Amino acid sequence: MVTSWPKGRAGPGVSAQRVADRINAMAGGRLRVDLFAAGEIVPALAILDAVGAGTVEMGHTAALYWQGKIPAASFFTTVPFGLGPVEHQAWIELMGGQALWEELYRPHGVQPFLAGNTGPSMGGWFRRRVEGLDDLKGMRIRVTGLGAEVFARLGAVPTTIPAGDLLPALERGSIDAVEFLAPATDLETGLPRHAPFYYAPGFNKPNGASEALIGLSAWTALPDDLKAIVAEACRAEHALGLADAHRRNAVALTDILGRGGVTLEAFPRAVIEGARKANTALVAEIAASSDLARRIVESYQAAQAETRSWSALAADMARAMARS
Amino acid sequence: MVTSWPKGRAGPGVSAQRVADRINAMAGGRLRVDLFAAGEIVPALAILDAVGAGTVEMGHTAALYWQGKIPAASFFTTVPFGLGPVEHQAWIELMGGQALWEELYRPHGVQPFLAGNTGPSMGGWFRRRVEGLDDLKGMRIRVTGLGAEVFARLGAVPTTIPAGDLLPALERGSIDAVEFLAPATDLETGLPRHAPFYYAPGFNKPNGASEALIGLSAWTALPDDLKAIVAEACRAEHALGLADAHRRNAVALTDILGRGGVTLEAFPRAVIEGARKANTALVAEIAASSDLARRIVESYQAAQAETRSWSALAADMARAMARS
Repeated sequence: MVTSWPKGRAGPGVSAQRVADRINAMAGGRLRVDLFAAGEIVPALAILDAVGAGTVEMGHTAALYWQGKIPAASFFTTVPFGLGPVEHQAWIELMGGQALWEELYRPHGVQPFLAGNTGPSMGGWFRRRVEGLDDLKGMRIRVTGLGAEVFARLGAVPTTIPAGDLLPALERGSIDAVEFLAPATDLETGLPRHAPFYYAPGFNKPNGASEALIGLSAWTALPDDLKAIVAEACRAEHALGLADAHRRNAVALTDILGRGGVTLEAFPRAVIEGARKANTALVAEIAASSDLARRIVESYQAAQAETRSWSALAADMARAMARS
Repeated sequence: MVTSWPKGRAGPGVSAQRVADRINAMAGGRLRVDLFAAGEIVPALAILDAVGAGTVEMGHTAALYWQGKIPAASFFTTVPFGLGPVEHQAWIELMGGQALWEELYRPHGVQPFLAGNTGPSMGGWFRRRVEGLDDLKGMRIRVTGLGAEVFARLGAVPTTIPAGDLLPALERGSIDAVEFLAPATDLETGLPRHAPFYYAPGFNKPNGASEALIGLSAWTALPDDLKAIVAEACRAEHALGLADAHRRNAVALTDILGRGGVTLEAFPRAVIEGARKANTALVAEIAASSDLARRIVESYQAAQAETRSWSALAADMARAMARS
């Protein structure tokens, strides 16, 4: 299994390792998965091509990386203002998402499964306070996924600096803000020293689904019991990955805020509303890009409309319980 | 596998079926799990005894049913004002909960696993509006788990009427309120016709963990790969059960509120604060009941303190995304 992650990277790297270990434990020697970090055999962002071509049998990565060549792919990782982790799994497994995902990936030669979740992301680290939409004009922000296009439509200048170059770029002042992930992954980056305004909600990435990809010829060759073992190994990781992210994020958030110098900020209402409007237009354009993209968008939006009432009430209840 | 549920009961009944199907699919004929509804072989509330005695190899049930003979058992289903579903899994799998659970159940001859989750419960159906603590005095309320003791300490009279007798009891006026579960399970009960005030948050059951129990002698006899298959089949159901409950609850809540005649109510602050205080005293008494109970309570509370910051922020973010 090739991955898009450094070996053991908290979150998706650990998820990939657990998926591999779990398959090996359940298969009792009849199937063996070896794990390779990003770049060891296949570059981080070439996983889909390598698995689809049969160069390797399996990969662990994220669908949003294929957004450039498959416009609707991001729907299988996260969409701005979209489904949260539990609703996302409900859509994929119980409301038609899995069949659409398989249809989308079939021409690329791979079978996809949900295989981990890093939870909702924060809105990012900013060098200056964002008081309104005007502050975003010309702002150079490192951001991935559909959120990049949303920020562009609000007048910001999204860039795609690799994770390792973020700190020097902030130090030099060549970028103004960084959307990374969530507290657990953000804590060790050093970002807070140079961008002390930490924003929520992360409307750009409310979900953090990882995917396992299996080459179609390797997949169809598996007997039914090993197929079930691979599928359940992935499903179990959606739960454990999410619980793990929750715990790590909590510890890291307390740590970040406890060090001083960082303030937790809410985006102003005008920014949220502007982003919501820009995202609605963007999603409509993706839906217009092909018949399959339209069906994916419609299915996703139906799932969101259907789950919204309980999502809101369950969030209120969780908030009441977490009162500190 | 014997269960505490009627065959196919939405929520835990479906979870039990999926755990059995999943083990059978992965084991490829080397292990076979047959499912029995409550009462078919073993009564609903005799699962622990039957599995522990080796009468049957496996059961699917909930830990709170053993609260009478094992005071700390409820901590492995839900505690008033306690952990939500994702935090509960983090506690069990990553923060010491599983080892304590195994220690608690070892004298009873069973190995436990998390094996489904029905999510947070509502506060219940009430015939009259609750304006303050005085309204609870003498109120006859059907309620399970530690929440029953909390209501008792607030002056209410908890009763344990079986689910099938709730409607006639409400019609006759022999009870005033019913805590059942969540919208998906509540919708078909007919309760709304006789108790139209539907309360949130469900501070009494913020989590809905199911458990799988395997007899210790059956468990130790399994080879490692089949052990892994059983464990992962249960783990996968925690995720899928929770997603399934989320979806079903959303559909049912929209339906319940759309029919008219039912209002969604918030408990007054004095009731929440009174219940919180009563619960704190109750939990302290459980902690004092044995050395193991004390260690369970301390571990649970440490997990809650550690996850609280992200639980609150993630709930706020989910609420912002679900804005309708």
